[in-house]
Amino acid sequence: MPEFKPPRPGEVAITLPPATDAGLVFIGRIRSPWPTPDDCPKNIRERNEIGIVEISEPYVQGLKDIERCSHVILLYWLDRSRRDLIVQSPSHAPEPRGVFALRSPVRPNPIGLAVVELLKVEGGTLTVRSVDCADGTPLIDVKPYFASIDSVPDARRP
Amino acid sequence: MPEFKPPRPGEVAITLPPATDAGLVFIGRIRSPWPTPDDCPKNIRERNEIGIVEISEPYVQGLKDIERCSHVILLYWLDRSRRDLIVQSPSHAPEPRGVFALRSPVRPNPIGLAVVELLKVEGGTLTVRSVDCADGTPLIDVKPYFASIDSVPDARRP
Repeated sequence: MPEFKPPRPGEVAITLPPATDAGLVFIGRIRSPWPTPDDCPKNIRERNEIGIVEISEPYVQGLKDIERCSHVILLYWLDRSRRDLIVQSPSHAPEPRGVFALRSPVRPNPIGLAVVELLKVEGGTLTVRSVDCADGTPLIDVKPYFASIDSVPDARRP
Repeated sequence: MPEFKPPRPGEVAITLPPATDAGLVFIGRIRSPWPTPDDCPKNIRERNEIGIVEISEPYVQGLKDIERCSHVILLYWLDRSRRDLIVQSPSHAPEPRGVFALRSPVRPNPIGLAVVELLKVEGGTLTVRSVDCADGTPLIDVKPYFASIDSVPDARRP
C-alpha cells in the first residue's frame, strides 16, 4: 500500500475493519491513456479518448451478444486508491462532502463505475469511449446499459 | 454456499480461481419486501416498492450532503448468487446469452447495481424507490447519480 498524504482540513478518516466480508476476482484490465491516477481527467464527459477493455480467460465467453448493446457499464477496482476518507474536501467543492455524495475514487470499497459507448468487440477486447481510470486498472464487471432502468435525464445533483 | 441446480442446456459454467484478488467490506444492508432472491421482481421498472438502505457505523458520516441528490446508484453484494455461469439461458431470451450482456445476479463478481430515487435521509437510513434485491442484501457502495455522465436515454439494447 502506498503512503498517503494526511487528510485536508475538514476531512475525516475512519479505521476500516481488518478483515473483508467478500472477495472479488479480477476479470480483465482497462487500458487507458493515463499512466497514473493523478493523470486521469476530472471531468470525463468533456473527453473523447478511447479505452480498451481486455477480458481475461475464462471470462471471454461471457461477452457473447454484448455487441448488441450500444453502451455498457464498467465496474473496476481502483487499486491505487486509499479507502479511509469518509468525508473529503475535493478542490471543486466549497466545503467537505460525504464520500457517498461524491464520485471520488477514494471510498470504503474503491469501485469505479463508468457508462461507456461500446465501439467495437473483437475476441476478448472491447473498444470503448470514454474511460476515466488509470492504465492497467483491474476490471470486475461489465453490464449492459438499459435506458429503461439506468437513464434518469432530469436527476438533480449537488 | 448453497447447492445450485445443474446448468440448463446451452449454459456454460467455468471454474473460478480459488483465491480472490481484492476484498470488500459491507457498509450496510438493504431492506426490501422480498425475503429471498426467488421472490424478487424480474422487471423493476414496473414496480414501485419502497426499499430501506441501512448504513452501518462508521460509514454514516459519508452520507453528508447526499440529500442534495434526487437519485443515487446503489452497489450491493448478491450474497446468495452462484458465480460460475458465464453463458446463461434466461427464461426471457430465445437462446443462451453471455453474462456480460445480461443483468443477471449470477456473475463472476455478483455485484448488483440499481439507480434509485432518494426519497428520504434520516441518520444512517435512506428511503429509496425502487430496489430489486432480496431483504438483507449487503450494501457495498452508494454513489451520486450524475445525469451528465450516467444518463444515455437513447442507448440501444438486445
